[in-house]
Amino acid sequence: MPQAKQFRLADIAELLGARLEGDGEIIISSLSPLNSAGEGQLSFLSNPVYAPQLKSCQASAVILAEKFADSFVGNRLISDKPYVTFAYATQLFALEDTPLALCHPSAVISESATIAEDVRIEANVVIGDGVTIGKGASIGVGSYVGRDCQIGENVRIYPNVVLYHEVILGDRVIIHSASVIGADGFGFAFDGERSVKIAQLGGVRIGNDVEIGAASTIDRGAMLDTIIGEGVKIDNHVQIGHNCVIGKHTIICGCAALAGSVTVGEYCIFGGGSGAVGHITVADRVQVSAMALLSKSVTEAGMISSGTLASPTPEWKRNALRFQQLDSIAKRLKELERKAD
Amino acid sequence: MPQAKQFRLADIAELLGARLEGDGEIIISSLSPLNSAGEGQLSFLSNPVYAPQLKSCQASAVILAEKFADSFVGNRLISDKPYVTFAYATQLFALEDTPLALCHPSAVISESATIAEDVRIEANVVIGDGVTIGKGASIGVGSYVGRDCQIGENVRIYPNVVLYHEVILGDRVIIHSASVIGADGFGFAFDGERSVKIAQLGGVRIGNDVEIGAASTIDRGAMLDTIIGEGVKIDNHVQIGHNCVIGKHTIICGCAALAGSVTVGEYCIFGGGSGAVGHITVADRVQVSAMALLSKSVTEAGMISSGTLASPTPEWKRNALRFQQLDSIAKRLKELERKAD
Amino acid sequence: MPQAKQFRLADIAELLGARLEGDGEIIISSLSPLNSAGEGQLSFLSNPVYAPQLKSCQASAVILAEKFADSFVGNRLISDKPYVTFAYATQLFALEDTPLALCHPSAVISESATIAEDVRIEANVVIGDGVTIGKGASIGVGSYVGRDCQIGENVRIYPNVVLYHEVILGDRVIIHSASVIGADGFGFAFDGERSVKIAQLGGVRIGNDVEIGAASTIDRGAMLDTIIGEGVKIDNHVQIGHNCVIGKHTIICGCAALAGSVTVGEYCIFGGGSGAVGHITVADRVQVSAMALLSKSVTEAGMISSGTLASPTPEWKRNALRFQQLDSIAKRLKELERKAD
Repeated sequence: MPQAKQFRLADIAELLGARLEGDGEIIISSLSPLNSAGEGQLSFLSNPVYAPQLKSCQASAVILAEKFADSFVGNRLISDKPYVTFAYATQLFALEDTPLALCHPSAVISESATIAEDVRIEANVVIGDGVTIGKGASIGVGSYVGRDCQIGENVRIYPNVVLYHEVILGDRVIIHSASVIGADGFGFAFDGERSVKIAQLGGVRIGNDVEIGAASTIDRGAMLDTIIGEGVKIDNHVQIGHNCVIGKHTIICGCAALAGSVTVGEYCIFGGGSGAVGHITVADRVQVSAMALLSKSVTEAGMISSGTLASPTPEWKRNALRFQQLDSIAKRLKELERKAD
Repeated sequence: MPQAKQFRLADIAELLGARLEGDGEIIISSLSPLNSAGEGQLSFLSNPVYAPQLKSCQASAVILAEKFADSFVGNRLISDKPYVTFAYATQLFALEDTPLALCHPSAVISESATIAEDVRIEANVVIGDGVTIGKGASIGVGSYVGRDCQIGENVRIYPNVVLYHEVILGDRVIIHSASVIGADGFGFAFDGERSVKIAQLGGVRIGNDVEIGAASTIDRGAMLDTIIGEGVKIDNHVQIGHNCVIGKHTIICGCAALAGSVTVGEYCIFGGGSGAVGHITVADRVQVSAMALLSKSVTEAGMISSGTLASPTPEWKRNALRFQQLDSIAKRLKELERKAD
Repeated sequence: MPQAKQFRLADIAELLGARLEGDGEIIISSLSPLNSAGEGQLSFLSNPVYAPQLKSCQASAVILAEKFADSFVGNRLISDKPYVTFAYATQLFALEDTPLALCHPSAVISESATIAEDVRIEANVVIGDGVTIGKGASIGVGSYVGRDCQIGENVRIYPNVVLYHEVILGDRVIIHSASVIGADGFGFAFDGERSVKIAQLGGVRIGNDVEIGAASTIDRGAMLDTIIGEGVKIDNHVQIGHNCVIGKHTIICGCAALAGSVTVGEYCIFGGGSGAVGHITVADRVQVSAMALLSKSVTEAGMISSGTLASPTPEWKRNALRFQQLDSIAKRLKELERKAD
């Protein structure tokens, strides 16, 4: 196990750009939520709902906003954006699993690949012809990088990822295990009897600072490329169809799925299990609720939902059966209104 | 192909603890459903709906409850719980693909790993530093076990599974192919311009007798651990977010997804494609219907549904359009009621 | 990078069986959509919605139907089925990544496997006992083929696919990365305290010309086989439960999921994220809308939907809350109607 990290609280304050109130000499060795933190631990308050927990919190220090400072008697790191400050704090304590550059002897690397010197290539990796990999990148155990892929600097690919040919990754991209980038888009022409495959001739381009979760798929384009903008964050089990174009800093939560040729704006959020049918456009800063389905374009910012609320099944069933009479109910109501006039 | 197994019916009865009625000397060589079973096959009746099939059933023997014994003229294995008895019967006939302990020469195993003597490690497996693996475990082709994982006894990991670092598996855990345990939870703090990664510093702890299907993901915790209780059964394509705590013996069907920090009780059932938003609590013995979404905590046992029933699209569309007038319909109805009084 | 292909337009016309109108001597080197095509590119018009783009289209040639011929002034390939003709055109331009037969020295192949001479087996592939592989097949990097699998001719398996034991693939099957065929179906018998595993003793049989996307799963049968008919096309993240039987030429879009023992007819289409509960039967030529759930059998052809339409969240919420009063609304309406009579 790599040695756990620890820091003086004053050093943390300086590294995070937070204002220290209290004893800078104490040693912090880990992070913990307010209600479970103890000696040597740093915690944080972001959501005001949890402010009452400050009173009994046993953390050695807490990151919080000025306005809550008086609610905690211990050491404090004051921040305008406590959640962001907390995020940087987690990065301080992250252990590098595999910090050293190496090329494991079991890796199979094409002679035509161009690999910067300080790249880590783990066991059983296979690198195809014409690949380029930028400095500081690491390719995890058993991953495959297809021909002519371009991988930026400080990219991190976890074990068992597959990049098909001609996938382009910007700098600092992170891809978690079992994700597949550049598989064929789902395109067939039906000739009346069977589905004729449309060869998928485009590629995939992924911008800087994109993170892709585990078991997600981003298909290659049919003729043009599928494009994921800078800073986009994609969770697990997400499906991005061919020729989608995702705007910068959009967030796509787990199990969400975009059909082909969906154009999504910047700073959108797709909730878990949400979806979009093909060939639609979604404006900037649209938020789609969990499990909602967009079946047409969305032209302005805002939050979109579909579905019904959960309720006990017997009650739900009575209402769901009535849903099937809804058009009739509306017409009968109108008729009554006419009579009542 | 490993030699198929066969048993005398009397031996099966004894192994399963069922009462034999009929000829114990016949040889059973496989299992089959009632309507397709023939000579040498054992079948079962659990759901009474299928009882009429007993009359024409050609199985050499049938597992069934006492009350249906007279409905089948052939050999019978009488059981109080015929479905459970059938389950144990299937285990008798399962062939061990890979019974022998071995360590394939292509495996890459850290010198600091501690591996019990009768463990099977297949081709292209990679085992990280500080890993411990209990006796009788098997690690399938191309799987990766990250540093400091602890794997219990008789665990079975199928090919191409990924365990990130510090994942703890109890005894007899089964994990199917392409599943990923311990990838980073989906946590970011938005700083107004971009998403800042929250390093995921927790781990994953999985109890005894848990089974996890193919292509499922269980994320590591942010600060504390994600916890899967003893006996939990998880199907394919399931997503368990960071810091979820799943109670014992809960069942999670295919494509279900729990967002982060969901606490689920014991003996719950999440239907296929169902989901839960983050930070909610679900009581013991709650059943969630297929594709239903829990958007708030559930405080007592029972079945929960959401959504609408399927119908032909033109009819559905008429009703779905009216759904968008539902609040107006309710208000107009109330107004009519007022007038009618 | 493999050398890009190029063709004389007259040769393309002949290969595709399309009628050339214009200059057959021009060289076509790639394909592009109407609105982005330029010099040396071939485009197509299938959906009449895009016909107005013909006027300003800069493609060197366009595939289109007779009736639109006059709308484009450049070179034309006239086809009765322009989308199908376009599909075949894409196949002309597809580059073969890995055309040469070889067996990479890192592959681990059982001595009892029978492999035709012109099969490609890439790095880190593992082939189990008793496997047969037909001529022209290719098995991608890091894929695993379990014992007694039978793989037809010209099958293409992409990297990191897992076939459990006794999976049968017809000819020309394509399986994309991270898919898992033949993992255990999700079957347990509850004994009152815990779930007893039902060993999954069946196999999986996949017909000719089936394509399976990335990260999809098809479970093995409990006692009998799971069966995928000829020409079926399955997208990414699809789940097919144990003992499903899928009719020929059915299309299953991304993230759709069929529970166990679902029987689906021929020429059906399951939209993205749609689903079916277990043990139901779906007639031929049924189309299921995106995210719709079939909770009972469908006995005739046609399109089926469920759910509600997306709308802005505040508006949606008002209506969704009223949904929970729907049975009451219907009853009150009926009472008013009674009074009004």
